[in-house]
Amino acid sequence: MVQISNRRSTLVEPSRTRRKADARRRAILKAAASAFRKHGIAATGMREIAEAADLSPANLYYYFESKDELLYFCQDWSLDRMLEAARAVRRGGERPPEQLRQVIRAQLHCMLDELEGSAAHLEVDALSRTLRERIVAKRDRYESAVRRIVEDGIRSRDFARTDATLVTRAILGALNWTARWYRPEGEKTWAAVAATFSDYLVRGLIR
Amino acid sequence: MVQISNRRSTLVEPSRTRRKADARRRAILKAAASAFRKHGIAATGMREIAEAADLSPANLYYYFESKDELLYFCQDWSLDRMLEAARAVRRGGERPPEQLRQVIRAQLHCMLDELEGSAAHLEVDALSRTLRERIVAKRDRYESAVRRIVEDGIRSRDFARTDATLVTRAILGALNWTARWYRPEGEKTWAAVAATFSDYLVRGLIR
Repeated sequence: MVQISNRRSTLVEPSRTRRKADARRRAILKAAASAFRKHGIAATGMREIAEAADLSPANLYYYFESKDELLYFCQDWSLDRMLEAARAVRRGGERPPEQLRQVIRAQLHCMLDELEGSAAHLEVDALSRTLRERIVAKRDRYESAVRRIVEDGIRSRDFARTDATLVTRAILGALNWTARWYRPEGEKTWAAVAATFSDYLVRGLIR
Repeated sequence: MVQISNRRSTLVEPSRTRRKADARRRAILKAAASAFRKHGIAATGMREIAEAADLSPANLYYYFESKDELLYFCQDWSLDRMLEAARAVRRGGERPPEQLRQVIRAQLHCMLDELEGSAAHLEVDALSRTLRERIVAKRDRYESAVRRIVEDGIRSRDFARTDATLVTRAILGALNWTARWYRPEGEKTWAAVAATFSDYLVRGLIR
Protein backbone atom coordinates (compact mmCIF):
# COMPACT_ATOMS: atom_id res chain seq x y z
CA MET A 1 0.00 0.00 0.00
CA VAL A 2 2.76 2.35 0.90
CA GLN A 3 4.39 1.63 -2.44
CA ILE A 4 1.17 2.28 -4.35
CA SER A 5 0.65 5.48 -2.47
CA ASN A 6 4.22 6.47 -3.28
CA ARG A 7 3.69 5.73 -6.98
CA ARG A 8 0.53 7.79 -6.94
CA SER A 9 2.35 10.69 -5.43
CA THR A 10 5.20 10.57 -7.96
CA LEU A 11 2.95 9.93 -10.96
CA VAL A 12 -0.03 12.10 -10.16
CA GLU A 13 1.19 14.83 -7.89
CA PRO A 14 3.90 16.25 -10.16
CA SER A 15 1.46 16.73 -13.02
CA ARG A 16 -1.06 18.30 -10.66
CA THR A 17 1.70 20.58 -9.39
CA ARG A 18 2.70 21.33 -12.96
CA ARG A 19 -0.88 22.15 -13.92
CA LYS A 20 -1.14 24.45 -10.94
CA ALA A 21 2.18 26.11 -11.80
CA ASP A 22 1.08 26.50 -15.43
CA ALA A 23 -2.14 28.18 -14.35
CA ARG A 24 -0.09 30.53 -12.17
CA ARG A 25 2.27 31.18 -15.10
CA ARG A 26 -0.66 32.04 -17.36
CA ALA A 27 -1.99 34.45 -14.72
CA ILE A 28 1.45 36.13 -14.61
CA LEU A 29 1.46 36.33 -18.41
CA LYS A 30 -1.90 38.05 -18.45
CA ALA A 31 -0.69 40.55 -15.85
CA ALA A 32 2.57 41.09 -17.74
CA ALA A 33 0.62 42.04 -20.88
CA SER A 34 -0.33 45.44 -19.46
CA ALA A 35 3.32 46.13 -18.56
CA PHE A 36 4.40 45.21 -22.10
CA ARG A 37 1.77 47.52 -23.57
CA LYS A 38 2.70 50.35 -21.22
CA HIS A 39 6.51 50.29 -21.50
CA GLY A 40 7.04 48.34 -24.74
CA ILE A 41 8.37 44.78 -24.64
CA ALA A 42 12.04 45.74 -24.95
CA ALA A 43 11.89 48.22 -22.06
CA THR A 44 9.96 45.93 -19.69
CA GLY A 45 12.16 44.10 -17.20
CA MET A 46 11.42 41.40 -14.62
CA ARG A 47 10.89 44.17 -12.03
CA GLU A 48 8.01 45.73 -14.03
CA ILE A 49 6.53 42.30 -14.70
CA ALA A 50 6.65 41.41 -10.99
CA GLU A 51 4.96 44.71 -10.15
CA ALA A 52 2.19 44.18 -12.73
CA ALA A 53 1.64 40.63 -11.47
CA ASP A 54 1.62 41.84 -7.85
CA LEU A 55 4.47 39.47 -6.96
CA SER A 56 7.82 39.95 -5.28
CA PRO A 57 10.69 39.64 -7.78
CA ALA A 58 11.83 36.47 -5.93
CA ASN A 59 8.38 34.97 -6.33
CA LEU A 60 8.32 35.83 -10.05
CA TYR A 61 11.72 34.14 -10.53
CA TYR A 62 10.22 30.98 -9.04
CA TYR A 63 7.87 30.79 -12.04
CA PHE A 64 10.10 32.24 -14.77
CA GLU A 65 13.88 32.22 -14.72
CA SER A 66 14.10 35.16 -17.13
CA LYS A 67 12.07 37.40 -19.42
CA ASP A 68 13.15 35.14 -22.30
CA GLU A 69 11.58 32.14 -20.60
CA LEU A 70 8.39 34.13 -20.05
CA LEU A 71 8.27 35.26 -23.70
CA TYR A 72 8.90 31.69 -24.85
CA PHE A 73 6.17 30.30 -22.58
CA CYS A 74 3.77 32.96 -23.87
CA GLN A 75 4.39 32.10 -27.52
CA ASP A 76 4.49 28.37 -26.98
CA TRP A 77 1.31 28.35 -24.94
CA SER A 78 -0.66 30.58 -27.31
CA LEU A 79 0.46 28.60 -30.39
CA ASP A 80 -0.58 25.35 -28.65
CA ARG A 81 -4.00 26.84 -27.96
CA MET A 82 -4.37 28.07 -31.54
CA LEU A 83 -3.21 24.75 -33.05
CA GLU A 84 -5.58 22.85 -30.80
CA ALA A 85 -8.45 25.11 -31.87
CA ALA A 86 -7.59 24.66 -35.57
CA ARG A 87 -7.57 20.86 -35.16
CA ALA A 88 -10.88 20.86 -33.28
CA VAL A 89 -12.45 23.03 -35.98
CA ARG A 90 -11.35 20.65 -38.74
CA ARG A 91 -12.64 17.66 -36.80
CA GLY A 92 -15.97 19.48 -36.44
CA GLY A 93 -16.57 18.89 -40.15
CA GLU A 94 -18.40 22.15 -40.98
CA ARG A 95 -18.03 23.67 -44.46
CA PRO A 96 -14.72 25.55 -44.99
CA PRO A 97 -16.23 29.07 -44.66
CA GLU A 98 -17.59 28.20 -41.21
CA GLN A 99 -14.32 26.48 -40.24
CA LEU A 100 -12.38 29.60 -41.21
CA ARG A 101 -14.75 31.81 -39.22
CA GLN A 102 -14.23 29.62 -36.16
CA VAL A 103 -10.43 29.62 -36.46
CA ILE A 104 -10.34 33.44 -36.82
CA ARG A 105 -12.56 33.74 -33.77
CA ALA A 106 -10.43 31.30 -31.75
CA GLN A 107 -7.18 33.13 -32.55
CA LEU A 108 -8.64 36.51 -31.60
CA HIS A 109 -10.07 35.03 -28.40
CA CYS A 110 -6.60 33.74 -27.47
CA MET A 111 -4.80 36.98 -28.44
CA LEU A 112 -7.23 39.66 -27.30
CA ASP A 113 -9.11 38.05 -24.43
CA GLU A 114 -6.84 35.45 -22.85
CA LEU A 115 -3.62 37.43 -23.45
CA GLU A 116 -5.33 40.85 -23.27
CA GLY A 117 -3.90 42.01 -26.58
CA SER A 118 -0.26 41.61 -25.64
CA ALA A 119 2.11 41.47 -28.59
CA ALA A 120 4.47 39.29 -26.53
CA HIS A 121 3.54 36.15 -28.41
CA LEU A 122 4.80 37.71 -31.65
CA GLU A 123 8.23 38.85 -30.49
CA VAL A 124 10.37 36.02 -31.88
CA ASP A 125 13.39 38.32 -32.31
CA ALA A 126 13.76 38.57 -28.54
CA LEU A 127 14.29 34.80 -28.18
CA SER A 128 17.53 32.82 -28.26
CA ARG A 129 18.19 31.01 -31.53
CA THR A 130 17.11 27.55 -30.32
CA LEU A 131 13.88 28.77 -28.75
CA ARG A 132 13.17 30.96 -31.79
CA GLU A 133 13.54 28.00 -34.15
CA ARG A 134 11.08 25.96 -32.10
CA ILE A 135 8.52 28.76 -32.11
CA VAL A 136 8.97 29.45 -35.83
CA ALA A 137 8.42 25.73 -36.57
CA LYS A 138 5.25 25.70 -34.48
CA ARG A 139 4.04 28.90 -36.12
CA ASP A 140 4.62 27.31 -39.54
CA ARG A 141 2.44 24.37 -38.46
CA TYR A 142 -0.31 26.80 -37.48
CA GLU A 143 -0.04 28.65 -40.80
CA SER A 144 -0.32 25.30 -42.63
CA ALA A 145 -3.42 24.38 -40.62
CA VAL A 146 -5.15 27.64 -41.62
CA ARG A 147 -3.98 27.32 -45.23
CA ARG A 148 -5.46 23.81 -45.45
CA ILE A 149 -8.89 25.24 -44.65
CA VAL A 150 -8.48 27.82 -47.44
CA GLU A 151 -7.34 25.05 -49.84
CA ASP A 152 -10.24 22.79 -48.81
CA GLY A 153 -12.63 25.66 -49.55
CA ILE A 154 -11.14 26.24 -53.00
CA ARG A 155 -11.44 22.50 -53.77
CA SER A 156 -15.03 22.33 -52.48
CA ARG A 157 -15.81 25.43 -54.60
CA ASP A 158 -17.04 27.35 -51.55
CA PHE A 159 -14.11 29.73 -52.16
CA ALA A 160 -12.98 31.37 -55.40
CA ARG A 161 -9.67 30.22 -56.89
CA THR A 162 -6.82 32.27 -55.42
CA ASP A 163 -3.26 31.99 -54.09
CA ALA A 164 -4.00 30.15 -50.82
CA THR A 165 -0.54 30.91 -49.38
CA LEU A 166 -0.85 34.66 -49.88
CA VAL A 167 -4.46 34.86 -48.71
CA THR A 168 -3.59 32.87 -45.57
CA ARG A 169 -0.81 35.36 -44.84
CA ALA A 170 -3.19 38.28 -45.36
CA ILE A 171 -5.60 36.71 -42.86
CA LEU A 172 -2.89 35.97 -40.27
CA GLY A 173 -1.44 39.46 -40.79
CA ALA A 174 -4.80 41.10 -40.07
CA LEU A 175 -5.16 38.93 -36.93
CA ASN A 176 -1.59 39.31 -35.65
CA TRP A 177 -1.62 43.08 -36.18
CA THR A 178 -4.51 43.43 -33.68
CA ALA A 179 -1.84 43.08 -30.96
CA ARG A 180 -0.48 46.46 -32.12
CA TRP A 181 -3.69 48.43 -31.68
CA TYR A 182 -6.14 46.49 -29.48
CA ARG A 183 -6.65 47.79 -25.93
CA PRO A 184 -8.84 45.74 -23.54
CA GLU A 185 -10.07 49.03 -22.00
CA GLY A 186 -10.91 50.50 -25.46
CA GLU A 187 -14.35 50.87 -27.01
CA LYS A 188 -14.21 47.69 -29.15
CA THR A 189 -14.65 44.38 -27.33
CA TRP A 190 -12.69 41.36 -28.56
CA ALA A 191 -16.00 39.80 -29.59
CA ALA A 192 -16.83 42.82 -31.80
CA VAL A 193 -13.39 42.58 -33.44
CA ALA A 194 -13.89 38.82 -33.95
CA ALA A 195 -17.35 39.28 -35.51
CA THR A 196 -16.26 41.98 -38.00
CA PHE A 197 -12.94 40.30 -38.85
CA SER A 198 -14.38 36.82 -39.41
CA ASP A 199 -17.17 38.23 -41.57
CA TYR A 200 -14.86 40.44 -43.66
CA LEU A 201 -11.97 37.98 -44.04
CA VAL A 202 -14.24 35.07 -45.09
CA ARG A 203 -16.35 37.18 -47.51
CA GLY A 204 -13.24 38.02 -49.52
CA LEU A 205 -12.89 34.33 -50.39
CA ILE A 206 -16.49 33.45 -51.25
CA ARG A 207 -17.14 32.80 -54.94
CA MET B 1 22.45 90.38 -61.16
CA VAL B 2 24.91 89.28 -58.55
CA GLN B 3 22.20 89.60 -55.96
CA ILE B 4 19.77 87.55 -58.03
CA SER B 5 22.41 84.92 -58.59
CA ASN B 6 23.08 84.86 -54.85
CA ARG B 7 19.41 84.51 -54.11
CA ARG B 8 19.23 81.67 -56.58
CA SER B 9 22.09 79.91 -54.90
CA THR B 10 20.63 80.22 -51.41
CA LEU B 11 17.07 79.44 -52.51
CA VAL B 12 17.67 76.77 -55.12
CA GLU B 13 21.00 75.18 -54.36
CA PRO B 14 20.25 74.06 -50.81
CA SER B 15 17.11 72.29 -51.92
CA ARG B 16 19.01 70.64 -54.79
CA THR B 17 21.67 69.55 -52.27
CA ARG B 18 18.95 68.35 -49.96
CA ARG B 19 17.28 66.39 -52.73
CA LYS B 20 20.60 64.78 -53.58
CA ALA B 21 21.27 63.96 -49.92
CA ASP B 22 17.74 62.56 -49.57
CA ALA B 23 18.26 60.31 -52.59
CA ARG B 24 21.51 59.09 -51.00
CA ARG B 25 19.71 58.54 -47.71
CA ARG B 26 17.02 56.49 -49.44
CA ALA B 27 19.71 54.36 -51.11
CA ILE B 28 21.27 53.75 -47.68
CA LEU B 29 17.85 52.82 -46.30
CA LYS B 30 17.32 50.28 -49.03
CA ALA B 31 20.73 48.76 -48.36
CA ALA B 32 20.10 48.77 -44.61
CA ALA B 33 16.91 46.74 -45.10
CA SER B 34 18.86 43.55 -45.82
CA ALA B 35 20.94 44.06 -42.66
CA PHE B 36 17.75 44.52 -40.61
CA ARG B 37 16.26 41.35 -42.07
CA LYS B 38 19.46 39.39 -41.49
CA HIS B 39 20.30 40.42 -37.91
CA GLY B 40 16.97 41.78 -36.66
CA ILE B 41 16.45 45.52 -36.18
CA ALA B 42 17.51 45.55 -32.52
CA ALA B 43 20.81 43.73 -33.19
CA THR B 44 21.78 45.83 -36.22
CA GLY B 45 24.20 48.65 -35.40
CA MET B 46 25.61 51.50 -37.49
CA ARG B 47 28.59 49.26 -38.36
CA GLU B 48 26.37 46.61 -40.02
CA ILE B 49 24.36 49.31 -41.79
CA ALA B 50 27.56 50.92 -43.16
CA GLU B 51 28.74 47.51 -44.35
CA ALA B 52 25.43 46.74 -46.10
CA ALA B 53 25.44 50.18 -47.74
CA ASP B 54 29.08 49.76 -48.77
CA LEU B 55 30.08 52.95 -46.93
CA SER B 56 32.73 53.73 -44.36
CA PRO B 57 31.17 54.32 -40.91
CA ALA B 58 32.34 57.97 -41.10
CA ASN B 59 30.54 58.37 -44.42
CA LEU B 60 27.36 56.81 -43.01
CA TYR B 61 27.45 59.22 -40.05
CA TYR B 62 27.50 62.08 -42.56
CA TYR B 63 24.03 61.04 -43.71
CA PHE B 64 22.58 59.73 -40.44
CA GLU B 65 23.72 60.80 -36.98
CA SER B 66 22.38 57.61 -35.38
CA LYS B 67 20.30 54.50 -36.02
CA ASP B 68 17.37 56.36 -34.45
CA GLU B 69 17.64 59.09 -37.06
CA LEU B 70 17.77 56.46 -39.80
CA LEU B 71 14.69 54.65 -38.42
CA TYR B 72 12.85 57.96 -38.13
CA PHE B 73 13.75 58.98 -41.70
CA CYS B 74 12.61 55.56 -42.93
CA GLN B 75 9.20 55.82 -41.27
CA ASP B 76 8.70 59.48 -42.07
CA TRP B 77 9.65 59.02 -45.71
CA SER B 78 7.50 55.93 -46.28
CA LEU B 79 4.47 57.50 -44.56
CA ASP B 80 4.88 60.63 -46.72
CA ARG B 81 4.93 58.43 -49.83
CA MET B 82 1.87 56.48 -48.69
CA LEU B 83 -0.08 59.63 -47.74
CA GLU B 84 0.78 61.22 -51.07
CA ALA B 85 -0.42 58.10 -52.90
CA ALA B 86 -3.68 58.04 -50.91
CA ARG B 87 -4.33 61.71 -51.77
CA ALA B 88 -3.55 61.18 -55.45
CA VAL B 89 -5.89 58.18 -55.55
CA ARG B 90 -8.77 60.17 -54.04
CA ARG B 91 -8.18 63.04 -56.47
CA GLY B 92 -8.30 60.48 -59.32
CA GLY B 93 -12.03 60.16 -58.70
CA GLU B 94 -12.44 56.42 -59.45
CA ARG B 95 -15.13 54.41 -57.61
CA PRO B 96 -14.14 53.44 -54.03
CA PRO B 97 -13.32 49.77 -54.85
CA GLU B 98 -10.79 50.89 -57.47
CA GLN B 99 -9.43 53.59 -55.12
CA LEU B 100 -8.91 50.99 -52.41
CA ARG B 101 -7.17 48.65 -54.84
CA GLN B 102 -4.79 51.45 -55.85
CA VAL B 103 -3.98 52.42 -52.26
CA ILE B 104 -3.25 48.78 -51.32
CA ARG B 105 -1.01 48.47 -54.35
CA ALA B 106 0.81 51.75 -53.58
CA GLN B 107 1.49 50.75 -49.95
CA LEU B 108 2.87 47.36 -50.98
CA HIS B 109 4.98 48.99 -53.67
CA CYS B 110 6.49 51.31 -51.07
CA MET B 111 7.00 48.57 -48.46
CA LEU B 112 8.07 45.60 -50.56
CA ASP B 113 9.73 47.16 -53.59
CA GLU B 114 11.13 50.53 -52.54
CA LEU B 115 12.06 49.43 -49.01
CA GLU B 116 12.66 45.77 -49.98
CA GLY B 117 10.34 44.43 -47.29
CA SER B 118 12.16 45.98 -44.36
CA ALA B 119 10.10 46.18 -41.19
CA ALA B 120 12.10 49.26 -40.16
CA HIS B 121 9.25 51.60 -40.97
CA LEU B 122 7.06 49.84 -38.38
CA GLU B 123 9.42 49.93 -35.40
CA VAL B 124 8.00 52.90 -33.51
CA ASP B 125 9.09 51.48 -30.14
CA ALA B 126 12.73 52.07 -31.06
CA LEU B 127 12.19 55.84 -31.43
CA SER B 128 12.50 58.55 -28.79
CA ARG B 129 9.21 59.81 -27.41
CA THR B 130 9.07 63.03 -29.50
CA LEU B 131 9.91 61.30 -32.76
CA ARG B 132 7.50 58.46 -31.95
CA GLU B 133 4.64 60.88 -31.36
CA ARG B 134 5.26 62.55 -34.72
CA ILE B 135 5.27 59.21 -36.52
CA VAL B 136 2.18 57.96 -34.70
CA ALA B 137 0.33 61.18 -35.65
CA LYS B 138 1.33 60.73 -39.30
CA ARG B 139 0.33 57.08 -39.22
CA ASP B 140 -3.07 58.09 -37.81
CA ARG B 141 -3.51 60.47 -40.74
CA TYR B 142 -2.75 57.62 -43.15
CA GLU B 143 -5.21 55.31 -41.41
CA SER B 144 -7.89 58.04 -41.67
CA ALA B 145 -7.18 58.45 -45.39
CA VAL B 146 -7.72 54.72 -46.01
CA ARG B 147 -10.79 54.64 -43.74
CA ARG B 148 -12.36 57.50 -45.70
CA ILE B 149 -12.24 55.38 -48.86
CA VAL B 150 -13.99 52.53 -47.02
CA GLU B 151 -16.61 54.98 -45.68
CA ASP B 152 -17.09 56.52 -49.14
CA GLY B 153 -17.70 53.03 -50.52
CA ILE B 154 -20.27 52.21 -47.84
CA ARG B 155 -22.07 55.52 -48.57
CA SER B 156 -21.98 54.94 -52.35
CA ARG B 157 -23.31 51.41 -51.73
CA ASP B 158 -20.35 49.84 -53.55
CA PHE B 159 -19.43 48.27 -50.19
CA ALA B 160 -21.63 46.41 -47.71
CA ARG B 161 -22.36 48.10 -44.38
CA THR B 162 -19.63 47.24 -41.87
CA ASP B 163 -17.45 48.72 -39.12
CA ALA B 164 -15.16 50.89 -41.28
CA THR B 165 -12.62 51.39 -38.47
CA LEU B 166 -12.15 47.68 -37.85
CA VAL B 167 -12.08 46.72 -41.54
CA THR B 168 -9.48 49.45 -42.21
CA ARG B 169 -7.33 47.99 -39.41
CA ALA B 170 -7.71 44.49 -40.86
CA ILE B 171 -6.53 45.81 -44.24
CA LEU B 172 -3.57 47.74 -42.79
CA GLY B 173 -2.68 44.74 -40.61
CA ALA B 174 -2.55 42.42 -43.62
CA LEU B 175 -0.36 44.97 -45.46
CA ASN B 176 1.95 45.84 -42.56
CA TRP B 177 2.48 42.17 -41.68
CA THR B 178 4.04 41.54 -45.11
CA ALA B 179 7.21 43.12 -43.68
CA ARG B 180 7.46 40.09 -41.38
CA TRP B 181 7.48 37.44 -44.11
CA TYR B 182 8.25 39.02 -47.50
CA ARG B 183 11.72 38.35 -48.94
CA PRO B 184 12.72 40.14 -52.18
CA GLU B 185 14.66 37.02 -53.20
CA GLY B 186 11.66 34.73 -52.48
CA GLU B 187 9.34 33.15 -55.04
CA LYS B 188 6.53 35.77 -54.78
CA THR B 189 7.18 39.12 -56.44
CA TRP B 190 5.81 42.27 -54.80
CA ALA B 191 3.48 42.64 -57.79
CA ALA B 192 2.03 39.15 -57.20
CA VAL B 193 1.45 39.99 -53.53
CA ALA B 194 -0.18 43.30 -54.53
CA ALA B 195 -2.48 41.62 -57.09
CA THR B 196 -3.72 38.88 -54.69
CA PHE B 197 -4.01 41.21 -51.68
CA SER B 198 -5.88 44.00 -53.48
CA ASP B 199 -8.28 41.49 -55.02
CA TYR B 200 -8.93 39.63 -51.75
CA LEU B 201 -9.12 42.67 -49.44
CA VAL B 202 -11.53 44.57 -51.72
CA ARG B 203 -13.78 41.54 -52.42
CA GLY B 204 -14.50 41.22 -48.70
CA LEU B 205 -16.19 44.62 -48.78
CA ILE B 206 -18.26 44.31 -51.97
CA ARG B 207 -22.01 44.05 -51.43
